[in-house]
Amino acid sequence: MRLEILPVLGIGHVSEGDDLAAMITAAAPWLRDGDVLVVTSKIVSKAEGRLVDVPADGPERLAARAEVLAAETARVVATRGATRIVQTHHGFVMASAGIDASNVDKTRLVLLPVDPDASARALRAALRERYGLDVAVIISDTMGRPWRNGLTDVALGVAGMDAIRDHRGEVDPYGNELELTEMAVVDELAGAGELIKGKCDQVPVAVVRGYLATTRGDDGIGAKALVRDSSLDLFSLGTAEARAAGLADAARLTDGTATAPADLAAVDRAIAAVADAVAPGTVFTHVTDPEVRERLVATVPDWPAGATTLVLGSPATPVDPFGLVRFGADLHRLRAALAAEGLQSTLLPPPPGTPAAALLAL
Amino acid sequence: MRLEILPVLGIGHVSEGDDLAAMITAAAPWLRDGDVLVVTSKIVSKAEGRLVDVPADGPERLAARAEVLAAETARVVATRGATRIVQTHHGFVMASAGIDASNVDKTRLVLLPVDPDASARALRAALRERYGLDVAVIISDTMGRPWRNGLTDVALGVAGMDAIRDHRGEVDPYGNELELTEMAVVDELAGAGELIKGKCDQVPVAVVRGYLATTRGDDGIGAKALVRDSSLDLFSLGTAEARAAGLADAARLTDGTATAPADLAAVDRAIAAVADAVAPGTVFTHVTDPEVRERLVATVPDWPAGATTLVLGSPATPVDPFGLVRFGADLHRLRAALAAEGLQSTLLPPPPGTPAAALLAL
Repeated sequence: MRLEILPVLGIGHVSEGDDLAAMITAAAPWLRDGDVLVVTSKIVSKAEGRLVDVPADGPERLAARAEVLAAETARVVATRGATRIVQTHHGFVMASAGIDASNVDKTRLVLLPVDPDASARALRAALRERYGLDVAVIISDTMGRPWRNGLTDVALGVAGMDAIRDHRGEVDPYGNELELTEMAVVDELAGAGELIKGKCDQVPVAVVRGYLATTRGDDGIGAKALVRDSSLDLFSLGTAEARAAGLADAARLTDGTATAPADLAAVDRAIAAVADAVAPGTVFTHVTDPEVRERLVATVPDWPAGATTLVLGSPATPVDPFGLVRFGADLHRLRAALAAEGLQSTLLPPPPGTPAAALLAL
Repeated sequence: MRLEILPVLGIGHVSEGDDLAAMITAAAPWLRDGDVLVVTSKIVSKAEGRLVDVPADGPERLAARAEVLAAETARVVATRGATRIVQTHHGFVMASAGIDASNVDKTRLVLLPVDPDASARALRAALRERYGLDVAVIISDTMGRPWRNGLTDVALGVAGMDAIRDHRGEVDPYGNELELTEMAVVDELAGAGELIKGKCDQVPVAVVRGYLATTRGDDGIGAKALVRDSSLDLFSLGTAEARAAGLADAARLTDGTATAPADLAAVDRAIAAVADAVAPGTVFTHVTDPEVRERLVATVPDWPAGATTLVLGSPATPVDPFGLVRFGADLHRLRAALAAEGLQSTLLPPPPGTPAAALLAL
């Protein structure tokens, strides 16, 4: 058993309307059933006319490029300097939405195919119907990734095989159920194709032979199986963007109380976190004595239903009007620190007889 | 030109102290100079004795595993439920620090090699010195990644070739300098190796033949070239963790002023962001009239050096003591919103004659 990775040489320049199936079969008459074709997305984009005209240079070029990028962007994920990582309408997270200015005239930009899975299906169908070839097709592109330097090629589209090889339920020789179960094999195949494409000049198609015993009868669900929903992603936003979102959360904190008794250790951590950020002499007391708590709660007519915990705040004395303003700011600091610990809170008026205090209900 | 990916069959179980060079050459007498060996990190770990004993099940196992994970962790990157993504002491960002319980007895956990580059160098040296083979060695492992479902194999260590193939400075046939220039080819080679390893049972070593014309004379700098410094990474923290850090930032905001004139549009955005979060009737005014501004600043003895902009806040009237407390909280909301826009601020006492207002210097 072995795999072979073969370059398809001599395809040459691709222009809008070109017939990729004809070009590939002419350049690689040696293709066989079961081969996996790894096709660089750029030639698919060119054949499909996914090009836009832009000025060759100057601020007009930058402005035109920014407009194209905005149109290709579903959501900005992270920005630093001129780098913009976005989620495309396909769901891919890529620098500059995969827009590329290399291997094309200086006055054009190449966009990703509108639907790379559909492009893969169409090429596969053309090879099957017109040339009798039963192959799988991967549309590949180059992407960066967090945490690791260097880029790799991955799959944008696939037809004729599953994007993911699922080992779930398999058991190793020691009787352990396998932990790492879902391999993104089309990404590994795309990367393997890049190894031979990158070694040659101008090789937009590679063939992986020996991987598939047979193709799927149908096309399969495509590379969209690789797109993780951003709501499930632990890294849906850049760190700086998420941190700014946390500051904005603090600016717009709403009242709330925990549905379960608040974690008292977390309350203590929040109080400790602001201890040296608040005005000297300000005291936040986490009320744990049930009698004291009951007496205080009894004085608050609008004590929120469900609130289980109480923090009593007292400003530094003596308190002038601006001292009360600063005390309020310090209370909001504590609310932000509580929110950082996952605890909601509500600001309440002070109990009678303690004009210079306030309550947070959690 | 072609690449071949070949499985090394029959290596069998690996135990502490086993001689991997002997086992691999016995199983693959067909190895040649210039081959790239892709070696699953687990057998390297086992041969190097990177195993820890843990209870087979129960809470004791969970506690022991948590202790091992803490020891392997340099920094927690993201947590959700039982999933913990951490940066290891090597710098790799991986789920559970790469600790693995599969393909090992139920009472042991496999840790990553202490220094996978050193492991690769040692294996390469053994193959060269004892078997006269001049190969490159990649130590691989399986990792997940943000944004894309499924796992791929990547390189933890390498010797005898560069981790990154650098196309910088190359020009395409259209005269454009290449944009995507640094390919992490050892990750693509590791993934290519997984394609054949994953197709067979128990194949911990794959060989990529045809990729290298010759190995490097020396070992090269290794896979540590792939580790991006977290200070340069746009995704150094999970989104939830970064968002909580933003809330904590709000809790501990320090006084400060911009070094350049504050971006007035950003100030306006911050004021707009809190408009419906503050007490009804509270007004924040961005003072743009130079005369008004000058008169107000003149009344503030400790107007900060460098502060260029001024926001005047007035609470809803009439103002009782608790109203001033709430106004202070609302001022801190605005400071957090300004910080979310990248603007530092300082809270100052109100100008004389306006006891119910406060100033933010930016």
